[in-house]
Amino acid sequence: MSDIDWLSNSIAPLYEEDRRQAGIRQASLTKPAGALGRLEELVIDLAAMQGYECPQINEVFISVFAADHGVAAKGVSAFPQAVTGEMIKNFSRGGAAINVLAREIGAHLEVINLGTINQLPPLEGVFDLQLGLGTKDLSFEPAMNKDQLGKALIAGRDAASRAAQYDAHLFIGGEMGIGNTTSATALACAMLNLPPADLAGPGTGLDDAGVTRKIEILQQALQRHEPCLNDVLQCLRCLGGFEIAALVGAYITCAQSGLPVLVDGYISSVAALMATKLSSQTGNWFLYSHRSAEPGHKLVLAALNARPLLDLGMRLGEGSGAVIAVPLLRTACALHAQMATFEEAGISEKGA
Amino acid sequence: MSDIDWLSNSIAPLYEEDRRQAGIRQASLTKPAGALGRLEELVIDLAAMQGYECPQINEVFISVFAADHGVAAKGVSAFPQAVTGEMIKNFSRGGAAINVLAREIGAHLEVINLGTINQLPPLEGVFDLQLGLGTKDLSFEPAMNKDQLGKALIAGRDAASRAAQYDAHLFIGGEMGIGNTTSATALACAMLNLPPADLAGPGTGLDDAGVTRKIEILQQALQRHEPCLNDVLQCLRCLGGFEIAALVGAYITCAQSGLPVLVDGYISSVAALMATKLSSQTGNWFLYSHRSAEPGHKLVLAALNARPLLDLGMRLGEGSGAVIAVPLLRTACALHAQMATFEEAGISEKGA
Repeated sequence: MSDIDWLSNSIAPLYEEDRRQAGIRQASLTKPAGALGRLEELVIDLAAMQGYECPQINEVFISVFAADHGVAAKGVSAFPQAVTGEMIKNFSRGGAAINVLAREIGAHLEVINLGTINQLPPLEGVFDLQLGLGTKDLSFEPAMNKDQLGKALIAGRDAASRAAQYDAHLFIGGEMGIGNTTSATALACAMLNLPPADLAGPGTGLDDAGVTRKIEILQQALQRHEPCLNDVLQCLRCLGGFEIAALVGAYITCAQSGLPVLVDGYISSVAALMATKLSSQTGNWFLYSHRSAEPGHKLVLAALNARPLLDLGMRLGEGSGAVIAVPLLRTACALHAQMATFEEAGISEKGA
Repeated sequence: MSDIDWLSNSIAPLYEEDRRQAGIRQASLTKPAGALGRLEELVIDLAAMQGYECPQINEVFISVFAADHGVAAKGVSAFPQAVTGEMIKNFSRGGAAINVLAREIGAHLEVINLGTINQLPPLEGVFDLQLGLGTKDLSFEPAMNKDQLGKALIAGRDAASRAAQYDAHLFIGGEMGIGNTTSATALACAMLNLPPADLAGPGTGLDDAGVTRKIEILQQALQRHEPCLNDVLQCLRCLGGFEIAALVGAYITCAQSGLPVLVDGYISSVAALMATKLSSQTGNWFLYSHRSAEPGHKLVLAALNARPLLDLGMRLGEGSGAVIAVPLLRTACALHAQMATFEEAGISEKGA
């Protein structure tokens, strides 16, 4: 296995004095206390992460990790496995949802191809790190070998390091890969000790019969890898995917380097859960953007003690739900920095 | 009474063919069908309102109506009534939440002073239409006379007309006025035929004893004006406020002129409910931005059959929750217009 000792490096501490100062500033602004709801909590949390009374979210760095899953051959997805490669080309040409969204918020976007069923030529804007022709079928053998797992984790670490080099204020990890709700659900079942029927959903659009088949495949997978299920890294190797492991590596690196993460949807939240299982303090650096339509997401969010900002029935991945929440973070920062205080405005405070 | 015949002018029809075309376009974009959730419905609704397959929300026009309520003397607000005037000055100086938010989204913002307890000097950026020193105490006399009601409705009509002149793609109405959750709750109780205890809440920050007092005052008000309660305009005159009547006038005018409205929080939703009671088709032109923390909002939204986009525990008014939802509308439009289709990207569709 590639060296994985780095996973246990220490997590950056929060700036509690800046959290306190930001709380005092919020209370002085010309509005009833608490009237901005979640936006007040958000900016105070960001103050503690960034170490400024008035935090900001100007530079956003998005890494989309793409890879697919041998288990797709078992009919667990509404789309053929080849679509992963086709979507990587679409990312490269700028036609996917995440391209449009990144442009809308002025974010830096990079795509990392970690390996799909069809080998792809070099593509503009895509890092070529193909670790295999997708993973193996997790329902009867380990999805990855140790070397692949180590390299996938490091691919995530490298993306987070590029984000830090870029002086990003926020990191968003995205994923794309046919078969990855099956992989993520297997991981979530293992982490939460719940049966597949509690979590499995339609993914990109399975019908009821498809979901039933997916549940059977997940049961086989969990039975097959039962000896691994109480070890987080072994779970990730046997049931995960290249892109999910990369998200885990990226999230942990962000938490080690003190870079706030805005977690996307179901797959990303499973990666966040794995990261917190590997290193409990990582969760200090996570903000949660949205609750997806995938039924298992609710349970994963509850395990993370996460209250996402949006609930719009999205289920696209690519980091899309997180990007859509970025204006809320920016607005929270703008209100905090720019509103007048009661004193500046000469306004009677409550009960005056 | 000023002429109110204009309230019954016909409501603009929707463009059903553009709705259909937008639906076809959505289905062709490179994502699983439905994966953008509410954003897909939003852009299709906007297509039907604007009459374009690809709608847009560039120009946003915000009118904030300010006025206060004589009933505030009964201790139904956490803030003294004079705060309305102080906040109008804060709007004029650019220090309030809505000023920051309007700048963030590049919207046009105007403020209309309809009358507060303290007469104010002319202020930059504030239309001076003072219809009285606030309303009368609605718990023992009609809040407005007929002339004031007619003028307040027309103040809203004029604001919506300015928005149409501005070629706005979206109208947002905001309100500010000490005592106005009491007035809005009285109106909602009358419209929904529900007791005050089902709807009354803390407003800007009443404690439990304050909410109990507010409920008693509301009971007195509903009893006092019982003969008016089955007539929408009489309700508005007896229990409403200048700013709420202006919102009603603005919303109806928007629907008559075919200008989409993004409704803000509790008070605005009560105005939207009054507008639909006056003219049922107005609701075709309303989008709902957020669910506020004020407990009555849920019931008012249910009566409007509204599913707001955000639920962030906000309770500020000023149009703030609506402005915060504008990036969602813009993003929905951008995705719809700019994403590649399956055909353009050469991607296998579902089940291929």
